Amino acid sequence: MNKRMNLLVFSGDYDKAMAALILANTARELEVDVTMFFAFWGLFLVRDPEKMNNEDKTAYEKIMAMSTPKGPEELPLSKMNFAGVGKKMLLEMMDDHDAPHLIHFLKGARKKDVKFYACKLSVEIMGFKEEEFIPELEIVDAKTYLRDALDANMQLFI
Amino acid sequence: MNKRMNLLVFSGDYDKAMAALILANTARELEVDVTMFFAFWGLFLVRDPEKMNNEDKTAYEKIMAMSTPKGPEELPLSKMNFAGVGKKMLLEMMDDHDAPHLIHFLKGARKKDVKFYACKLSVEIMGFKEEEFIPELEIVDAKTYLRDALDANMQLFI
Amino acid sequence: MNKRMNLLVFSGDYDKAMAALILANTARELEVDVTMFFAFWGLFLVRDPEKMNNEDKTAYEKIMAMSTPKGPEELPLSKMNFAGVGKKMLLEMMDDHDAPHLIHFLKGARKKDVKFYACKLSVEIMGFKEEEFIPELEIVDAKTYLRDALDANMQLFI
Repeated sequence: MNKRMNLLVFSGDYDKAMAALILANTARELEVDVTMFFAFWGLFLVRDPEKMNNEDKTAYEKIMAMSTPKGPEELPLSKMNFAGVGKKMLLEMMDDHDAPHLIHFLKGARKKDVKFYACKLSVEIMGFKEEEFIPELEIVDAKTYLRDALDANMQLFI
Repeated sequence: MNKRMNLLVFSGDYDKAMAALILANTARELEVDVTMFFAFWGLFLVRDPEKMNNEDKTAYEKIMAMSTPKGPEELPLSKMNFAGVGKKMLLEMMDDHDAPHLIHFLKGARKKDVKFYACKLSVEIMGFKEEEFIPELEIVDAKTYLRDALDANMQLFI
Repeated sequence: MNKRMNLLVFSGDYDKAMAALILANTARELEVDVTMFFAFWGLFLVRDPEKMNNEDKTAYEKIMAMSTPKGPEELPLSKMNFAGVGKKMLLEMMDDHDAPHLIHFLKGARKKDVKFYACKLSVEIMGFKEEEFIPELEIVDAKTYLRDALDANMQLFI
Protein backbone atom coordinates (compact mmCIF):
# COMPACT_ATOMS: atom_id res chain seq x y z
CA MET A 1 0.00 0.00 0.00
CA ASN A 2 1.20 3.51 -0.79
CA LYS A 3 2.39 5.85 1.92
CA ARG A 4 0.17 8.88 2.53
CA MET A 5 0.79 12.57 3.23
CA ASN A 6 -1.83 15.05 4.48
CA LEU A 7 -1.27 18.82 4.29
CA LEU A 8 -3.53 21.34 6.01
CA VAL A 9 -3.03 24.56 4.03
CA PHE A 10 -4.19 27.38 6.31
CA SER A 11 -1.93 30.17 5.08
CA GLY A 12 -2.73 32.33 2.07
CA ASP A 13 0.89 33.22 1.35
CA TYR A 14 2.64 32.67 -1.98
CA ASP A 15 5.81 31.25 -0.46
CA LYS A 16 4.04 28.85 1.91
CA ALA A 17 1.66 27.71 -0.85
CA MET A 18 4.74 27.09 -2.99
CA ALA A 19 6.24 24.90 -0.25
CA ALA A 20 2.97 22.97 0.09
CA LEU A 21 2.59 22.38 -3.65
CA ILE A 22 6.24 21.41 -4.19
CA LEU A 23 5.85 18.82 -1.43
CA ALA A 24 2.58 17.59 -2.96
CA ASN A 25 4.06 17.21 -6.45
CA THR A 26 7.24 15.57 -5.16
CA ALA A 27 5.27 13.14 -3.02
CA ARG A 28 3.20 12.08 -6.03
CA GLU A 29 6.44 11.42 -7.96
CA LEU A 30 7.36 9.06 -5.11
CA GLU A 31 3.91 7.41 -5.44
CA VAL A 32 2.83 8.80 -2.09
CA ASP A 33 -0.92 9.53 -1.86
CA VAL A 34 -1.55 13.20 -1.08
CA THR A 35 -4.47 15.06 0.48
CA MET A 36 -4.47 18.86 0.68
CA PHE A 37 -7.09 20.39 2.98
CA PHE A 38 -7.55 24.12 2.40
CA ALA A 39 -8.91 26.18 5.29
CA PHE A 40 -9.30 29.89 6.06
CA TRP A 41 -6.82 31.99 4.01
CA GLY A 42 -5.66 28.84 2.25
CA LEU A 43 -8.91 28.89 0.27
CA PHE A 44 -7.60 31.80 -1.81
CA LEU A 45 -5.12 29.44 -3.49
CA VAL A 46 -7.84 27.24 -4.97
CA ARG A 47 -10.18 29.98 -6.21
CA ASP A 48 -10.71 29.97 -9.95
CA PRO A 49 -9.96 33.60 -10.89
CA GLU A 50 -12.42 33.43 -13.81
CA LYS A 51 -15.38 32.09 -11.88
CA MET A 52 -16.16 34.74 -9.26
CA ASN A 53 -19.92 34.88 -8.69
CA ASN A 54 -21.11 37.45 -6.17
CA GLU A 55 -24.83 36.95 -6.71
CA ASP A 56 -26.76 36.49 -3.47
CA LYS A 57 -23.75 37.35 -1.35
CA THR A 58 -23.99 39.66 1.65
CA ALA A 59 -22.09 42.95 1.61
CA TYR A 60 -19.30 41.46 3.73
CA GLU A 61 -19.06 38.39 1.53
CA LYS A 62 -18.71 40.62 -1.53
CA ILE A 63 -15.92 42.59 0.14
CA MET A 64 -14.23 39.31 1.07
CA ALA A 65 -14.58 38.00 -2.49
CA MET A 66 -13.32 41.13 -4.19
CA SER A 67 -10.56 42.39 -1.91
CA THR A 68 -8.69 39.11 -1.42
CA PRO A 69 -6.39 37.15 -3.77
CA LYS A 70 -8.15 35.33 -6.59
CA GLY A 71 -6.09 32.24 -7.32
CA PRO A 72 -2.41 31.37 -6.86
CA GLU A 73 -0.64 34.18 -8.67
CA GLU A 74 -2.29 36.93 -6.59
CA LEU A 75 -1.12 35.55 -3.24
CA PRO A 76 1.31 37.82 -1.35
CA LEU A 77 4.57 36.73 0.29
CA SER A 78 4.44 35.92 4.02
CA LYS A 79 7.48 38.19 4.36
CA MET A 80 6.50 40.68 1.67
CA ASN A 81 8.32 43.59 3.19
CA PHE A 82 10.82 41.59 5.17
CA ALA A 83 14.15 43.33 4.65
CA GLY A 84 12.71 44.81 1.46
CA VAL A 85 12.63 41.53 -0.39
CA GLY A 86 9.41 41.77 -2.36
CA LYS A 87 7.44 39.23 -4.32
CA LYS A 88 8.45 40.79 -7.66
CA MET A 89 12.13 40.38 -6.88
CA LEU A 90 11.63 36.79 -5.74
CA LEU A 91 9.71 35.94 -8.92
CA GLU A 92 12.54 37.36 -11.04
CA MET A 93 15.07 35.34 -9.06
CA MET A 94 12.94 32.25 -9.69
CA ASP A 95 12.89 33.08 -13.43
CA ASP A 96 16.70 33.37 -13.39
CA HIS A 97 16.81 29.72 -12.34
CA ASP A 98 13.93 28.57 -14.58
CA ALA A 99 11.95 27.68 -11.45
CA PRO A 100 8.21 27.37 -12.26
CA HIS A 101 5.73 29.78 -10.68
CA LEU A 102 3.03 28.73 -8.23
CA ILE A 103 0.35 28.30 -10.90
CA HIS A 104 2.42 25.57 -12.57
CA PHE A 105 2.81 23.62 -9.34
CA LEU A 106 -0.96 23.86 -8.82
CA LYS A 107 -1.57 22.56 -12.36
CA GLY A 108 0.90 19.75 -11.68
CA ALA A 109 -0.86 18.74 -8.48
CA ARG A 110 -4.24 18.71 -10.29
CA LYS A 111 -2.85 16.44 -13.02
CA LYS A 112 -1.15 14.13 -10.54
CA ASP A 113 -4.37 13.25 -8.67
CA VAL A 114 -3.70 15.07 -5.44
CA LYS A 115 -6.93 15.01 -3.40
CA PHE A 116 -8.21 18.58 -2.91
CA TYR A 117 -10.42 19.17 0.13
CA ALA A 118 -11.82 22.51 1.34
CA CYS A 119 -12.97 23.22 4.89
CA LYS A 120 -16.78 23.48 4.87
CA LEU A 121 -16.97 25.95 7.77
CA SER A 122 -14.37 28.29 6.22
CA VAL A 123 -16.19 28.22 2.86
CA GLU A 124 -19.50 29.06 4.55
CA ILE A 125 -18.16 31.86 6.74
CA MET A 126 -16.36 33.52 3.83
CA GLY A 127 -19.43 33.09 1.63
CA PHE A 128 -17.72 31.28 -1.25
CA LYS A 129 -19.69 28.97 -3.54
CA GLU A 130 -18.50 25.59 -4.74
CA GLU A 131 -18.43 26.73 -8.37
CA GLU A 132 -15.97 29.52 -7.55
CA PHE A 133 -13.19 26.99 -6.87
CA ILE A 134 -11.15 24.70 -9.11
CA PRO A 135 -13.35 21.75 -10.12
CA GLU A 136 -11.23 19.12 -8.31
CA LEU A 137 -12.06 20.69 -4.94
CA GLU A 138 -14.42 18.81 -2.65
CA ILE A 139 -15.95 20.63 0.32
CA VAL A 140 -15.76 18.47 3.44
CA ASP A 141 -16.15 18.86 7.20
CA ALA A 142 -13.42 18.70 9.83
CA LYS A 143 -14.22 15.06 10.60
CA THR A 144 -13.40 14.01 7.05
CA TYR A 145 -10.10 15.89 7.23
CA LEU A 146 -9.21 14.34 10.59
CA ARG A 147 -9.95 10.78 9.54
CA ASP A 148 -7.73 11.25 6.49
CA ALA A 149 -4.96 12.90 8.50
CA LEU A 150 -4.96 10.33 11.31
CA ASP A 151 -4.36 7.55 8.78
CA ALA A 152 -1.54 9.36 6.96
CA ASN A 153 2.17 8.76 7.51
CA MET A 154 2.81 12.47 7.88
CA GLN A 155 0.75 15.62 8.44
CA LEU A 156 1.79 19.25 8.23
CA PHE A 157 0.00 22.51 9.10
CA ILE A 158 1.21 25.08 6.59
CA MET B 1 -6.86 1.88 22.07
CA ASN B 2 -7.86 5.35 20.97
CA LYS B 3 -5.93 7.24 18.33
CA ARG B 4 -4.08 10.31 19.57
CA MET B 5 -3.52 13.84 18.24
CA ASN B 6 -0.95 16.32 19.57
CA LEU B 7 -1.12 20.03 18.73
CA LEU B 8 1.70 22.46 19.52
CA VAL B 9 -0.02 25.87 19.65
CA PHE B 10 2.74 28.45 19.19
CA SER B 11 0.76 31.21 17.51
CA GLY B 12 -1.28 33.78 19.40
CA ASP B 13 -3.66 34.49 16.52
CA TYR B 14 -7.44 34.25 16.70
CA ASP B 15 -7.81 32.44 13.39
CA LYS B 16 -5.07 29.89 14.06
CA ALA B 17 -6.35 29.27 17.60
CA MET B 18 -9.78 28.71 16.06
CA ALA B 19 -8.33 26.09 13.71
CA ALA B 20 -6.55 24.37 16.60
CA LEU B 21 -9.63 24.29 18.82
CA ILE B 22 -11.99 23.14 16.06
CA LEU B 23 -9.60 20.26 15.37
CA ALA B 24 -9.39 19.45 19.09
CA ASN B 25 -13.16 19.42 19.57
CA THR B 26 -13.77 17.41 16.39
CA ALA B 27 -11.11 14.88 17.34
CA ARG B 28 -12.75 14.34 20.73
CA GLU B 29 -16.09 13.70 18.98
CA LEU B 30 -14.27 10.94 17.08
CA GLU B 31 -12.94 9.61 20.42
CA VAL B 32 -9.41 10.63 19.56
CA ASP B 33 -7.27 11.60 22.57
CA VAL B 34 -6.02 15.17 22.28
CA THR B 35 -3.08 17.02 23.82
CA MET B 36 -2.62 20.76 23.24
CA PHE B 37 0.78 22.16 24.19
CA PHE B 38 0.80 25.96 24.41
CA ALA B 39 4.13 27.72 23.90
CA PHE B 40 5.27 31.32 23.42
CA TRP B 41 2.43 33.49 22.01
CA GLY B 42 0.08 30.52 22.25
CA LEU B 43 -0.01 31.05 26.03
CA PHE B 44 -2.23 34.10 25.56
CA LEU B 45 -5.10 31.80 24.54
CA VAL B 46 -5.17 30.00 27.88
CA ARG B 47 -4.88 33.03 30.16
CA ASP B 48 -7.84 33.54 32.45
CA PRO B 49 -8.76 37.20 31.82
CA GLU B 50 -10.06 37.58 35.38
CA LYS B 51 -7.02 36.22 37.16
CA MET B 52 -4.20 38.57 36.23
CA ASN B 53 -1.80 38.89 39.18
CA ASN B 54 1.16 41.19 38.64
CA GLU B 55 2.50 41.05 42.19
CA ASP B 56 6.25 40.32 42.34
CA LYS B 57 6.62 40.68 38.58
CA THR B 58 9.50 42.60 37.02
CA ALA B 59 8.76 45.73 35.00
CA TYR B 60 9.09 43.78 31.75
CA GLU B 61 6.84 41.01 33.01
CA LYS B 62 4.20 43.59 33.93
CA ILE B 63 4.40 45.13 30.44
CA MET B 64 4.12 41.64 28.95
CA ALA B 65 1.12 40.82 31.15
CA MET B 66 -0.75 44.05 30.51
CA SER B 67 -0.07 44.79 26.85
CA THR B 68 -0.81 41.35 25.41
CA PRO B 69 -4.14 39.54 24.82
CA LYS B 70 -5.85 38.22 27.95
CA GLY B 71 -7.70 35.10 26.88
CA PRO B 72 -9.24 33.93 23.62
CA GLU B 73 -11.46 36.84 22.62
CA GLU B 74 -8.64 39.40 22.69
CA LEU B 75 -6.42 37.52 20.22
CA PRO B 76 -5.83 39.36 16.92
CA LEU B 77 -6.13 37.86 13.43
CA SER B 78 -2.91 36.59 11.82
CA LYS B 79 -3.95 38.59 8.76
CA MET B 80 -5.54 41.46 10.64
CA ASN B 81 -4.95 44.03 7.95
CA PHE B 82 -4.66 41.61 5.06
CA ALA B 83 -6.68 43.16 2.23
CA GLY B 84 -8.60 45.15 4.84
CA VAL B 85 -10.40 42.12 6.21
CA GLY B 86 -10.46 42.82 9.93
CA LYS B 87 -11.37 40.71 12.89
CA LYS B 88 -14.62 42.57 13.49
CA MET B 89 -15.84 41.84 9.98
CA LEU B 90 -14.87 38.18 10.30
CA LEU B 91 -16.71 37.88 13.61
CA GLU B 92 -19.86 39.34 12.03
CA MET B 93 -19.54 36.91 9.12
CA MET B 94 -19.26 34.09 11.65
CA ASP B 95 -22.40 35.38 13.41
CA ASP B 96 -24.25 35.39 10.08
CA HIS B 97 -23.67 31.64 9.91
CA ASP B 98 -24.25 30.99 13.64
CA ALA B 99 -20.63 29.86 13.94
CA PRO B 100 -19.50 29.93 17.59
CA HIS B 101 -16.71 32.28 18.65
CA LEU B 102 -13.32 31.11 19.91
CA ILE B 103 -14.33 31.22 23.58
CA HIS B 104 -17.00 28.58 22.95
CA PHE B 105 -14.56 26.22 21.27
CA LEU B 106 -12.22 26.65 24.24
CA LYS B 107 -15.05 25.85 26.66
CA GLY B 108 -15.91 22.81 24.56
CA ALA B 109 -12.34 21.52 24.63
CA ARG B 110 -12.21 21.97 28.42
CA LYS B 111 -15.43 19.97 28.84
CA LYS B 112 -14.31 17.26 26.46
CA ASP B 113 -11.16 16.38 28.42
CA VAL B 114 -8.57 17.73 26.04
CA LYS B 115 -5.21 17.63 27.84
CA PHE B 116 -3.88 21.19 28.27
CA TYR B 117 -0.11 21.56 28.60
CA ALA B 118 1.89 24.80 28.81
CA CYS B 119 5.58 25.14 27.98
CA LYS B 120 7.49 25.67 31.24
CA LEU B 121 10.28 27.75 29.68
CA SER B 122 7.81 30.09 27.91
CA VAL B 123 5.82 30.58 31.12
CA GLU B 124 8.98 31.42 33.06
CA ILE B 125 10.41 33.83 30.50
CA MET B 126 7.13 35.71 30.16
CA GLY B 127 6.73 35.77 33.94
CA PHE B 128 3.26 34.23 34.08
CA LYS B 129 2.08 32.38 37.19
CA GLU B 130 0.21 29.10 37.17
CA GLU B 131 -2.88 30.67 38.75
CA GLU B 132 -3.20 33.15 35.87
CA PHE B 133 -4.18 30.38 33.46
CA ILE B 134 -7.30 28.24 33.07
CA PRO B 135 -7.31 25.61 35.83
CA GLU B 136 -6.99 22.64 33.44
CA LEU B 137 -3.55 23.82 32.31
CA GLU B 138 -0.54 21.82 33.47
CA ILE B 139 2.93 23.36 33.12
CA VAL B 140 5.37 20.81 31.70
CA ASP B 141 8.83 20.75 30.13
CA ALA B 142 9.72 20.06 26.50
CA LYS B 143 10.52 16.43 27.26
CA THR B 144 6.98 15.77 28.43
CA TYR B 145 5.62 17.39 25.26
CA LEU B 146 7.95 15.37 23.03
CA ARG B 147 7.16 12.02 24.64
CA ASP B 148 3.45 12.70 24.16
CA ALA B 149 3.92 13.90 20.57
CA LEU B 150 6.15 11.00 19.51
CA ASP B 151 3.47 8.53 20.59
CA ALA B 152 0.63 10.34 18.82
CA ASN B 153 -0.80 9.43 15.41
CA MET B 154 -0.53 13.02 14.23
CA GLN B 155 1.22 16.19 15.34
CA LEU B 156 0.78 19.74 14.09
CA PHE B 157 2.69 22.97 14.81
CA ILE B 158 0.12 25.75 14.68
CA MET C 1 15.75 1.40 16.96
CA ASN C 2 15.57 5.05 17.92
CA LYS C 3 12.48 7.13 17.32
CA ARG C 4 12.86 9.88 14.72
CA MET C 5 11.68 13.51 14.44
CA ASN C 6 11.73 15.60 11.27
CA LEU C 7 11.36 19.39 11.37
CA LEU C 8 10.83 21.51 8.25
CA VAL C 9 12.05 24.98 9.25
CA PHE C 10 10.47 27.40 6.77
CA SER C 11 10.21 30.48 8.96
CA GLY C 12 13.06 32.91 9.49
CA ASP C 13 11.81 34.15 12.85
CA TYR C 14 13.85 34.16 16.06
CA ASP C 15 11.04 32.81 18.23
CA LYS C 16 10.05 30.00 15.85
CA ALA C 17 13.70 29.04 15.29
CA MET C 18 14.04 28.92 19.09
CA ALA C 19 11.09 26.54 19.30
CA ALA C 20 12.57 24.33 16.56
CA LEU C 21 16.02 24.19 18.14
CA ILE C 22 14.73 23.57 21.67
CA LEU C 23 12.72 20.63 20.30
CA ALA C 24 15.76 19.36 18.39
CA ASN C 25 18.06 19.53 21.43
CA THR C 26 15.47 17.98 23.74
CA ALA C 27 14.77 15.16 21.30
CA ARG C 28 18.49 14.32 21.14
CA GLU C 29 18.58 14.16 24.94
CA LEU C 30 15.82 11.54 24.65
CA GLU C 31 17.96 9.70 22.04
CA VAL C 32 15.51 10.57 19.29
CA ASP C 33 17.14 10.99 15.85
CA VAL C 34 16.52 14.48 14.47
CA THR C 35 16.51 15.90 10.94
CA MET C 36 16.07 19.64 10.37
CA PHE C 37 15.29 20.67 6.78
CA PHE C 38 15.76 24.40 6.20
CA ALA C 39 13.78 25.98 3.35
CA PHE C 40 13.07 29.53 2.16
CA TRP C 41 13.44 32.05 5.03
CA GLY C 42 14.60 29.23 7.30
CA LEU C 43 17.94 29.27 5.47
CA PHE C 44 18.87 32.52 7.25
CA LEU C 45 19.24 30.57 10.51
CA VAL C 46 22.05 28.38 9.16
CA ARG C 47 24.09 31.06 7.41
CA ASP C 48 27.59 31.47 8.79
CA PRO C 49 27.79 35.23 9.43
CA GLU C 50 31.54 35.25 8.76
CA LYS C 51 31.45 33.46 5.44
CA MET C 52 29.40 35.70 3.17
CA ASN C 53 30.79 35.48 -0.39
CA ASN C 54 29.04 37.64 -2.98
CA GLU C 55 31.40 36.92 -5.85
CA ASP C 56 29.60 35.95 -9.06
CA LYS C 57 26.20 36.75 -7.58
CA THR C 58 23.56 38.64 -9.55
CA ALA C 59 22.43 42.05 -8.31
CA TYR C 60 19.29 40.52 -6.75
CA GLU C 61 21.31 37.78 -5.10
CA LYS C 62 23.62 40.39 -3.58
CA ILE C 63 20.64 42.34 -2.24
CA MET C 64 19.21 39.11 -0.82
CA ALA C 65 22.55 38.22 0.79
CA MET C 66 23.18 41.61 2.32
CA SER C 67 19.74 42.79 3.42
CA THR C 68 18.60 39.61 5.20
CA PRO C 69 19.61 38.13 8.58
CA LYS C 70 23.05 36.54 8.68
CA GLY C 71 22.84 33.72 11.21
CA PRO C 72 20.68 33.09 14.27
CA GLU C 73 21.17 36.23 16.32
CA GLU C 74 20.01 38.56 13.54
CA LEU C 75 16.62 36.88 13.07
CA PRO C 76 13.62 39.07 13.94
CA LEU C 77 10.65 38.06 16.09
CA SER C 78 7.55 36.78 14.27
CA LYS C 79 5.57 39.23 16.42
CA MET C 80 8.22 41.93 16.54
CA ASN C 81 5.80 44.78 17.00
CA PHE C 82 2.98 42.75 18.50
CA ALA C 83 1.65 44.79 21.38
CA GLY C 84 5.03 46.53 21.51
CA VAL C 85 6.90 43.51 22.78
CA GLY C 86 10.18 43.72 20.93
CA LYS C 87 13.03 41.30 20.53
CA LYS C 88 15.30 43.31 22.82
CA MET C 89 12.82 43.11 25.67
CA LEU C 90 12.33 39.38 25.13
CA LEU C 91 16.09 38.78 25.15
CA GLU C 92 16.39 40.66 28.45
CA MET C 93 13.55 38.61 29.89
CA MET C 94 15.38 35.48 28.78
CA ASP C 95 18.56 36.74 30.46
CA ASP C 96 16.61 37.32 33.68
CA HIS C 97 15.90 33.59 33.72
CA ASP C 98 19.34 32.52 32.49
CA ALA C 99 17.72 31.10 29.36
CA PRO C 100 20.31 30.61 26.60
CA HIS C 101 20.01 32.61 23.36
CA LEU C 102 19.32 31.05 19.96
CA ILE C 103 23.00 30.76 19.02
CA HIS C 104 23.59 28.42 21.97
CA PHE C 105 20.74 26.12 20.97
CA LEU C 106 22.17 26.02 17.43
CA LYS C 107 25.60 25.12 18.80
CA GLY C 108 24.00 22.43 20.94
CA ALA C 109 22.18 20.91 17.98
CA ARG C 110 25.42 20.85 15.95
CA LYS C 111 27.26 19.06 18.78
CA LYS C 112 24.43 16.60 19.32
CA ASP C 113 24.49 15.25 15.73
CA VAL C 114 21.23 16.71 14.51
CA LYS C 115 21.10 16.15 10.74
CA PHE C 116 21.06 19.52 8.94
CA TYR C 117 19.49 19.57 5.47
CA ALA C 118 18.92 22.62 3.24
CA CYS C 119 16.38 22.80 0.42
CA LYS C 120 18.28 22.78 -2.90
CA LEU C 121 15.70 24.85 -4.78
CA SER C 122 15.57 27.55 -2.08
CA VAL C 123 19.37 27.76 -2.00
CA GLU C 124 19.55 28.13 -5.77
CA ILE C 125 16.79 30.73 -6.05
CA MET C 126 18.28 32.86 -3.28
CA GLY C 127 21.75 32.49 -4.81
CA PHE C 128 23.49 31.17 -1.68
CA LYS C 129 26.62 29.03 -1.96
CA GLU C 130 27.29 25.92 0.07
CA GLU C 131 30.34 27.49 1.76
CA GLU C 132 28.19 30.33 3.14
CA PHE C 133 26.38 27.96 5.52
CA ILE C 134 27.45 26.12 8.67
CA PRO C 135 29.63 23.17 7.63
CA GLU C 136 27.20 20.51 8.91
CA LEU C 137 24.59 21.57 6.35
CA GLU C 138 23.94 19.25 3.43
CA ILE C 139 22.01 20.57 0.42
CA VAL C 140 19.37 18.06 -0.68
CA ASP C 141 16.28 17.97 -2.90
CA ALA C 142 12.65 17.69 -1.80
CA LYS C 143 12.63 13.94 -2.42
CA THR C 144 15.37 13.40 0.16
CA TYR C 145 13.44 15.48 2.68
CA LEU C 146 10.20 13.60 2.01
CA ARG C 147 11.73 10.14 2.32
CA ASP C 148 13.21 11.15 5.68
CA ALA C 149 9.97 12.75 6.88
CA LEU C 150 7.73 9.85 5.83
CA ASP C 151 9.81 7.45 7.92
CA ALA C 152 9.85 9.67 11.01
CA ASN C 153 7.56 9.30 14.03
CA MET C 154 6.66 12.98 13.93
CA GLN C 155 6.98 15.86 11.49
CA LEU C 156 6.39 19.56 12.02
CA PHE C 157 6.30 22.54 9.64
CA ILE C 158 7.70 25.49 11.58
